[in-house]
Amino acid sequence: MEMLLIELNKDSETPLYEQIYQQIRNDITEGKLVVGEKLPSKRKLGEFLDVSQTTIEIAYGQLAAEGFITSKPRKGYFVQEVGELAYVQPTEEFKFTAKEVRKELEIDFSPGKIDTESFPFAQWRKYAKDTIDESSSHLLLLGHPHGDVELRQEIAKYLYHSRGVDCSADQIIVGSGTEQLMPLLIRILGPRAKYAIEDPGYPLTHHVFFHNNREAVPIAVDMEGMDVQALQQSEATVAYVTPSHQFPTGTVLSAARRTALLNWAATHASNFIIEDDYDSEFRYTGRPIPSLQGMDKAGNVIYVSTFSKSLMPSLRIAYMVLPPVLLKHYEEAFIHYSSTVPRLDQHTLARFMADGHFARHLNRMRKVYKRKLQLLTDSLQQYAPKITFSGDEAGMHILINVRTDENEDSLTKAALTQGIRVYGLNEYSKVSKSSQPSFLIGFGGLADDRITWAVERLMKAWNIEKR
Amino acid sequence: MEMLLIELNKDSETPLYEQIYQQIRNDITEGKLVVGEKLPSKRKLGEFLDVSQTTIEIAYGQLAAEGFITSKPRKGYFVQEVGELAYVQPTEEFKFTAKEVRKELEIDFSPGKIDTESFPFAQWRKYAKDTIDESSSHLLLLGHPHGDVELRQEIAKYLYHSRGVDCSADQIIVGSGTEQLMPLLIRILGPRAKYAIEDPGYPLTHHVFFHNNREAVPIAVDMEGMDVQALQQSEATVAYVTPSHQFPTGTVLSAARRTALLNWAATHASNFIIEDDYDSEFRYTGRPIPSLQGMDKAGNVIYVSTFSKSLMPSLRIAYMVLPPVLLKHYEEAFIHYSSTVPRLDQHTLARFMADGHFARHLNRMRKVYKRKLQLLTDSLQQYAPKITFSGDEAGMHILINVRTDENEDSLTKAALTQGIRVYGLNEYSKVSKSSQPSFLIGFGGLADDRITWAVERLMKAWNIEKR
Repeated sequence: MEMLLIELNKDSETPLYEQIYQQIRNDITEGKLVVGEKLPSKRKLGEFLDVSQTTIEIAYGQLAAEGFITSKPRKGYFVQEVGELAYVQPTEEFKFTAKEVRKELEIDFSPGKIDTESFPFAQWRKYAKDTIDESSSHLLLLGHPHGDVELRQEIAKYLYHSRGVDCSADQIIVGSGTEQLMPLLIRILGPRAKYAIEDPGYPLTHHVFFHNNREAVPIAVDMEGMDVQALQQSEATVAYVTPSHQFPTGTVLSAARRTALLNWAATHASNFIIEDDYDSEFRYTGRPIPSLQGMDKAGNVIYVSTFSKSLMPSLRIAYMVLPPVLLKHYEEAFIHYSSTVPRLDQHTLARFMADGHFARHLNRMRKVYKRKLQLLTDSLQQYAPKITFSGDEAGMHILINVRTDENEDSLTKAALTQGIRVYGLNEYSKVSKSSQPSFLIGFGGLADDRITWAVERLMKAWNIEKR
Repeated sequence: MEMLLIELNKDSETPLYEQIYQQIRNDITEGKLVVGEKLPSKRKLGEFLDVSQTTIEIAYGQLAAEGFITSKPRKGYFVQEVGELAYVQPTEEFKFTAKEVRKELEIDFSPGKIDTESFPFAQWRKYAKDTIDESSSHLLLLGHPHGDVELRQEIAKYLYHSRGVDCSADQIIVGSGTEQLMPLLIRILGPRAKYAIEDPGYPLTHHVFFHNNREAVPIAVDMEGMDVQALQQSEATVAYVTPSHQFPTGTVLSAARRTALLNWAATHASNFIIEDDYDSEFRYTGRPIPSLQGMDKAGNVIYVSTFSKSLMPSLRIAYMVLPPVLLKHYEEAFIHYSSTVPRLDQHTLARFMADGHFARHLNRMRKVYKRKLQLLTDSLQQYAPKITFSGDEAGMHILINVRTDENEDSLTKAALTQGIRVYGLNEYSKVSKSSQPSFLIGFGGLADDRITWAVERLMKAWNIEKR
């Protein structure tokens, strides 16, 4: 045969193997290469095109996998009959590319970012590697719909020791995120449940009420957390709260409010508290506060948390602890459901936890975030009293208040023009909009040596000078 | 200090490190070990208890991680002040264990099982290992809500070449399973959509309509697939179909019905077809049939598929291809949602596909399943005409009809008493219950050398003899 006419563009973003693959495929579908024709050997074509044999191997492999060519042992590669394939000739040039590219800003004070530099990659890789093994071939099949028991037991142990949550593994439902678990919870709480949400509060979970056609009453949050008196006067039957580190204000629910909230829940069998403990692992000052679930005597608290902050947001593993009265409903309602969490990941995590690596990682990260927080507050303090902050006892973000004549919108825009993203508090409020500009300042994703610089940049954008 | 009194039960199911951990923890919380007391070295305690130093290390590590003891470099382990911790003393003995143990039967003809022996563990492990790397630390953060573009591009390529699906990566939404994607789809199809479902059909997806308060009209399935005339006469606006290998009958939607179905969809802008192509990768006879999506000119087909059959059910990666008209609605409705699929898994899969391993794996598995199917039908043929079968052109299950005076229920029970699980067709039917007993016979999860034996066992349980 004649040498194939293949033109390679080594500056193109399309990988070389893809270019080779595409051109041979076109030659076949257009009939330039006829059935039975022998292709040049990998070595020959590689030399001719001045690319590695591996590149040719990938291109040929792809063509063979898709049935354009076949490989005959010790003979070579031959063009196959394409008519046999469900091959649909494109009417227009094929469009693989996705359009969106998310603009990365120079400084992002997002409260959702974590420190990615300190993640124990070597250990996680080891546990993942050990889990993906022939001896675990049963893990390819579906596991328990609530999550595999090995993981649920580790979560139960962890919750018990670190958060005072009193539950058995049976009560735990593992899911792909709080947003994935909430609709299931909403369904078993029934159509007559009315929800109280914190205002300001967490938009991701609040949207779920709306999407599931449930009424959600915003209840104001003050320096002690949710206003339980307002809750009592409302018609709500289920209160969704973030007691350890209120999102977004950073407030810790006071002891008096905790008692009041638990008493409110205990007054009616249909009253429940959803305790979202999303970043409770990171607490820097004062005595750790046990979970509401651990204080609950009436069995009316649903505890919800996630590994998003403690390990990585992209892991997509969260869980809820159901009180026994709801567990039965759950089992009945979702008998046909499979767990949405990949089973190999569940076991990687379970083994990582069982060997103590999770606890060690948390201890390490607590120090990492405490250091970042210190750098952040040290920098901000230089701009007092124009800048004050709160919510610094726990978590990965604080709240700053800005004393200025400008409003939140104009400050957000001013920051953005300098490549800085900040998150105005009013974005998280439904009713209780504040006139004084306040912003969430997430520090989890900022490198230590950038924090002071980032604060200075932001203050410059806002024309606020050191005192 | 005195030697700790630790009693180990080497026959217990509780691991040794857990026993050691528990007993030391109890001694600390009960005050038997006082604050500041030094624990024996790992070597000493290991020798004394006759266990490995690693076992002691894990126990001490757990105690240290939870703050019961601290390690001072080159000095040893010391009991810590427990009052500092959010440690809640249990009122009753703690219950870690989950109760349920799923009974495994000797023979399970489940249609949901795959061959786990042929999975390319070594390759998958390599790609997972390469993905979990410091250089990919950005993958710890949340990615694109529709799934990362690298994976969506690979899916688009694959669908185009193997199924004739014509789409760009933009149109693809990656999710944790068809059941997870369907509620999202139902929401954007609006409250006025009425669904037509196949009868008999797939209970997992059908339940989703019920759970989302949507009307679902059962439409009978015959030897050509869904009865499109009945569909036309119904009030349904959205038809949910499995055209490549109808679940559970195994029927392939005939060419005439395909055209009729597409024409039905094209008559109204609010008519849609949901094409669930769940096991189309495995087709054994005849020409591959391209997807409805590829034949669709009106843009009314939503293509849905999964990696559950082609890779593993527990991977929890599925996807849907939205026509442009729905894509906009989707983006507006779910702006706050994160993808539920772990990002490291997305990239492991994307790279595995990009390097041609997925296509190669499918080719290999097609042969594996074809061989299993052959063994199954060869065995069953010996029991003709009492046993007949259909639906053997594709997929991982066939349908058998049993000529007998007994009904499905009694045959199911007869099999069960012999440790054999079979799946009666009427379990999947809402309206069109059949009087002749029919069963789904899944063969994906059965080892080659067990298939003939399993069929013989089943026939013996049913008192059906070879002709």
